[in-house]
Parts: sequence; C-alpha cells; structure tokens
Amino acid sequence: MKPIENSTLGIVGLGLMGGAIARSVRNEGIIPRGAAGRILGCDLDGDTRAAARAGGVIDEGYASPESMLGRCDLIFLCLNPAALLEFMKTWMGAFRPGTLITDIAGIKGSIAAVMETALRDDLDFIPGHPMAGSEKGGYGNAEKCDFHGKNYILTPLKRNKDENLAYLKALIYRMGFSRITCTTPEEHDRKIAFTSQLCHVIAAALIACEDDREITRFGGGSFEDLTRIAMLNVPLWTELFRENRTELLRRIEQFEGSLEKIKRLITGEEKEELQEVLETIRDRRAAMG
Amino acid sequence: MKPIENSTLGIVGLGLMGGAIARSVRNEGIIPRGAAGRILGCDLDGDTRAAARAGGVIDEGYASPESMLGRCDLIFLCLNPAALLEFMKTWMGAFRPGTLITDIAGIKGSIAAVMETALRDDLDFIPGHPMAGSEKGGYGNAEKCDFHGKNYILTPLKRNKDENLAYLKALIYRMGFSRITCTTPEEHDRKIAFTSQLCHVIAAALIACEDDREITRFGGGSFEDLTRIAMLNVPLWTELFRENRTELLRRIEQFEGSLEKIKRLITGEEKEELQEVLETIRDRRAAMG
Repeated sequence: MKPIENSTLGIVGLGLMGGAIARSVRNEGIIPRGAAGRILGCDLDGDTRAAARAGGVIDEGYASPESMLGRCDLIFLCLNPAALLEFMKTWMGAFRPGTLITDIAGIKGSIAAVMETALRDDLDFIPGHPMAGSEKGGYGNAEKCDFHGKNYILTPLKRNKDENLAYLKALIYRMGFSRITCTTPEEHDRKIAFTSQLCHVIAAALIACEDDREITRFGGGSFEDLTRIAMLNVPLWTELFRENRTELLRRIEQFEGSLEKIKRLITGEEKEELQEVLETIRDRRAAMG
Repeated sequence: MKPIENSTLGIVGLGLMGGAIARSVRNEGIIPRGAAGRILGCDLDGDTRAAARAGGVIDEGYASPESMLGRCDLIFLCLNPAALLEFMKTWMGAFRPGTLITDIAGIKGSIAAVMETALRDDLDFIPGHPMAGSEKGGYGNAEKCDFHGKNYILTPLKRNKDENLAYLKALIYRMGFSRITCTTPEEHDRKIAFTSQLCHVIAAALIACEDDREITRFGGGSFEDLTRIAMLNVPLWTELFRENRTELLRRIEQFEGSLEKIKRLITGEEKEELQEVLETIRDRRAAMG
C-alpha cells in the first residue's frame, strides 16, 4: 500500500459513522486538504453529499459508486449489514484489484462468512466495528462523534494480508481510537450481544414501561443514562437484534436470571445476603474501570 | 425566618450529599465566608470534619450534634433513611424551637409518616430528595457533585408552614437546582422505584451476568453508561431497595413483562412488528427530552 496521505479513500454511506470517519481522516490530517490523496464519498442523499463537500470533508461526492470504486485504494463500507452484503454482491466487479475494504457493521458472523468465501481473490476485506456510535444518527451528527478513547474491534479473515491489517490498524489509531481488539466473528457477536444489543433491549424495555413524559422530573441521571439509547435507529437495530438473535436471546435469558435472583434477595428475609451480592457486583464493576 | 445569609445552617452527615450541600451554600455565596450566618457540620469522622473546616466549607465541625442543634435555624439531615429516623428519635429534644429541618433520603413514605405524627409541635420538617447523587460517595467526592440543572423533589407535610416551604424552595434554586417537584410521599416512592431503584437493580443484574474484567474492550459507551451505577453505596441501596420493596417489585415485574414482549418480537416471524414497537419507544423517549 502507498502512504495513506497519497491514497484515495472511498467512503460508501455518509451517515453518522461514514461521515465521522471521513471527518476524522480529514481533520486529524491523515489525508489533509490539498494532499496527493483524496477522500471520495458516495451517498444516495444529495444534501448529505453537498454538505460533506462544502465542509471540505470529502473531495468528491457520488450518487452511484460505479465510477468511484475503481479509483480507491481503501474503502470503508458504512452501511447497515444487509445493505452491505447486497452492495458487495452488486458491485463486486467494480473494485480495483488490490483494494483494501473494511466495514463498520455491528454484526460480524454473517459478513465474515460471506467475505471469506465469496470475495474476489484480488480484493482484501477486513471486517471491523468501531465502538463509537450515538443514538443520534445521520451525517448532521457526525461532527459530535468523537473517536478518541474509543474501542475498535477487528475480526480478520484467514485470507487477510498481514501488511493490510497493519495498515488498517495504524489508520484506526491515527483516527483517535485508543484500543483495537482482534477477535473471531463469533466472539465479537457473543460479546456485542451483551455489551451493546442487550443494553439497547433493556433501554427499550424500560421506556416501554412508562408513558409519562414528565417522568424525567424524577430523574437523577441514572434513568436518563440508561434510556438514552432507546432513541434508536430503528431499521439498523431491528436488523442487528434479529441477525444476532441466538446470542442475544441467550444474553437476555441470562440477564432475566440475574434479575430474578436480585428480586428474590430484595424480598427475602436476609438483608445480609442482598448486601453481600451487591458488594461483589460493586467490586466487579469497579474492576472493569 | 431571618435572611439566609444571617442564618445558622447545620448539616448532619458530611458525606457526598451533606458535603455537596455545604459546599454549594458556601460557594454560591448563599452564606459566604465572613457573613453573619454560619455553616455548622456534624460528622462522626474526624478527617472529614477537618477537611471541611480546612476547605472553608464549614465554619465549625462537631462530632456530636448535642451542642450544635440548639444553635441552628435550618438543618439538613444527610443520613441514610434508618439512621435519620434513629437520629430524630435520639435528638428530638435538642432542636431549637422553630427550627426548619429537611432531609435528603431517597425514600419518603416512612419518613413523612413518622414526621407527620412524632415531630415536636414547635419544629417544621419538610421531606426532600435532591436528585443529584453519584456512584462515588463520601465527602471527598462532594466537589464533583454539581447541582446545576438537576431535579429536587419535596413531599411537604400538611403541617408545614407556607413560609418555610417558600424559604426552602428559594434556597434549593440558589444552590443551582433547576426544577423542584412537590408531590406526595407515595407518588415519590412510586416514581423513584422506577427512575432510580429499578435502574440500579438493572445495572447490578447486568454486572452479575459477566465476570470478564476485559469486557469493556467490547464497550461503546452504552454498557459503561448502564452499569456505572452498579458501583453502588451498598448499605444505602440495600436499605432503599428493601424499604421500598413493594413498589420496586411491582416495577421489576412490569419491566420483566416489557422485556419478555421485546424478546418475543426479536424471535418472532414478523420483523415489522418489532420495528413498530421500537419506533413507538424511540418517539416516547425522544419526547422525554
């Protein structure tokens, strides 16, 4: 791969994450304005393309990826999971040989499986998941999406070239992410079912309990923090929940078991037992940092 | 009541909230250093008293309330619920006639019931609940406890004097709180079971599911936000959960029902139904601000 500042980066989908990645590459000076390298963006929405061009976040905007894909050295596919698979099927022939492709989808098993087998031999696809979303989606919120201090997960394929993996990791760190974890797609989906999907399901279930809009008069921060993510991007989360349903269900049931146990301790005779369990939980959470 | 800047304020218990109230009254210039008014603090811990005196947060520190209570115009009891009731029983005779007393406990039914009947006729007790805690307790964390923009709940007793209620409300606003809600103790306990206690139970149940300390590698903010409050002040929350167990259980069960419904939709055949429910939830949460 040539140095990143001389490379042509393509972003497919200038939503929250695509927009934030383009902004970061530009603003962190990775491909600065006027460098030999270019940032190309593809999005169906004309206003989004115009805003990204006007803000100097992308150098060129495209409604169709047709003429863009063949020019890119590196491509971020910033699409919902099903749309991503559909996109790869449709445009597989349009990529330039040797292109390094990565994605941002919150589910990795199904994507990695397809890419391991159906990808052109002369392309390299490294599945990735930047853990830096927000309940407020769309390009307009991309500037509030800060990567500094955030996690990034990669689930490399057996066929990935070492040099490409090193190249992508270096870029991720330069975008501000503080920690990259490389794991299997299965492990990703198991862990994410807990840290992300279960948390979204819980937030949604909490809000489903209460239709008093004035309930936040009784809020001290905890309720607001727990339920902010209930303002979810519905098509995306519907897809993520259902795509990862086996792991997610396992986690929901595990959580239901925990909740049941604490419920019994609250009503039980022994105050000391509740106290001991809460102490273990407090220490465990504190150790997580 | 005389003007607050000429009054003697007593704080019983210089923990997180007692410390934060004393700091706020001093630093917002409500009873500034050198004013005719004084801030007196009572705490069993000598280091805490010394730190509060050295920082100019209190003017005088006491290990026992005996000599302090008779000098105060206004007293904040910043104790856990059971300790508060015990305190009032022990020291009822030591207050000066006409003293305005308030508390900060997260449960109001049992406290209001006792104060309505067992309080001396020449004292006025207004039950209160500042919604501005933190998972990090103790005087040492009081300076991070910011009241600006926060909620405060009062559950006035029938016997409270209007002028005292107006006086306390004015003080609360001067401390930085942005919204005071006056309600019944029963309504407080019902709502708080949901916005506060249920959220703490959920956070605890989530942490009980997972003993991998490295799980935060897979965190994108949601998990961290949902579980921060699992680092709870165990004696306090054990008391709050058990004291309000009837309402809390009702809320846990309601939440379990919501969760069950979402679980069924995730596994069900109809993607559209899940999508519709999530849309309603998203809009409802957005309307809560």
